[in-house]
Amino acid sequence: MSTATLHAPASTDEAAILALLSAFRQAHHDKDAAALAAPFAPHAAIYDLEPPLAHDGISIERKERWLATWETPIDIEPRNFKLTVSGDHAFGWGYLRMSGTKHGGPQVSFWMRSTVCLQRAASGWRIIHEHTSVPFYMDETLRPAFDLQP
Amino acid sequence: MSTATLHAPASTDEAAILALLSAFRQAHHDKDAAALAAPFAPHAAIYDLEPPLAHDGISIERKERWLATWETPIDIEPRNFKLTVSGDHAFGWGYLRMSGTKHGGPQVSFWMRSTVCLQRAASGWRIIHEHTSVPFYMDETLRPAFDLQP
Repeated sequence: MSTATLHAPASTDEAAILALLSAFRQAHHDKDAAALAAPFAPHAAIYDLEPPLAHDGISIERKERWLATWETPIDIEPRNFKLTVSGDHAFGWGYLRMSGTKHGGPQVSFWMRSTVCLQRAASGWRIIHEHTSVPFYMDETLRPAFDLQP
Repeated sequence: MSTATLHAPASTDEAAILALLSAFRQAHHDKDAAALAAPFAPHAAIYDLEPPLAHDGISIERKERWLATWETPIDIEPRNFKLTVSGDHAFGWGYLRMSGTKHGGPQVSFWMRSTVCLQRAASGWRIIHEHTSVPFYMDETLRPAFDLQP
């Protein structure tokens, strides 16, 4: 899946990107907004679960407000993630199960789809686009399909 | 945004991919399931608006059933599409407004987010991953946000 380049071997790049995604998961567990924002390039195009259609870059303040709604650590468990590195760019997609308990709310546990596009920067790989979603039932309920399993 | 490679100039690749996306729009307008499936690689990972989480490749039969639910041509108008070519891979993201009228239903018109990942094949560029979604309101309604504007 990787394209030979003049850069470091793809396997090193893949390892670096997987480490970045692993740190992203840890940042959710630790509810650390700054660590959560660290993998993103400035002006990364973020397509999130909720409106608006897109965010222009990660806002640490917005992430802090969201993290504060959780009572427990947040787990985002990856499944079937497929990564492709091509020169100074990379992309990957797969499933993430988000689970934990919100303040005053029920236990949360659902699978979402995640696509990420990355670019090599002087400081390492950075996410320049993230697309996260849950499909919805196209019936009279139009409810998000939180009950799907990979 | 493009990486120099031993292949054709990125501008030629970008033109080829834009032509592919343009043909995809035309296939929707014509409600031509075979033309709609043509840009996809076998086993492309499709994250669609509705369940399941993913489809393993495009099914022409499934597309025919969906196309038959529309009374009018279907328009998918792109907006703010950003494309990056890197060697034998490419990715792009932006908005698509889907509009038309369903049989026995109201007029449809909403903006969705679209991410595509492509790979160069012997026969040309092919989509290996498509992620399409509408965000949903995280309130008591959990309704899809069909009312957003780019």
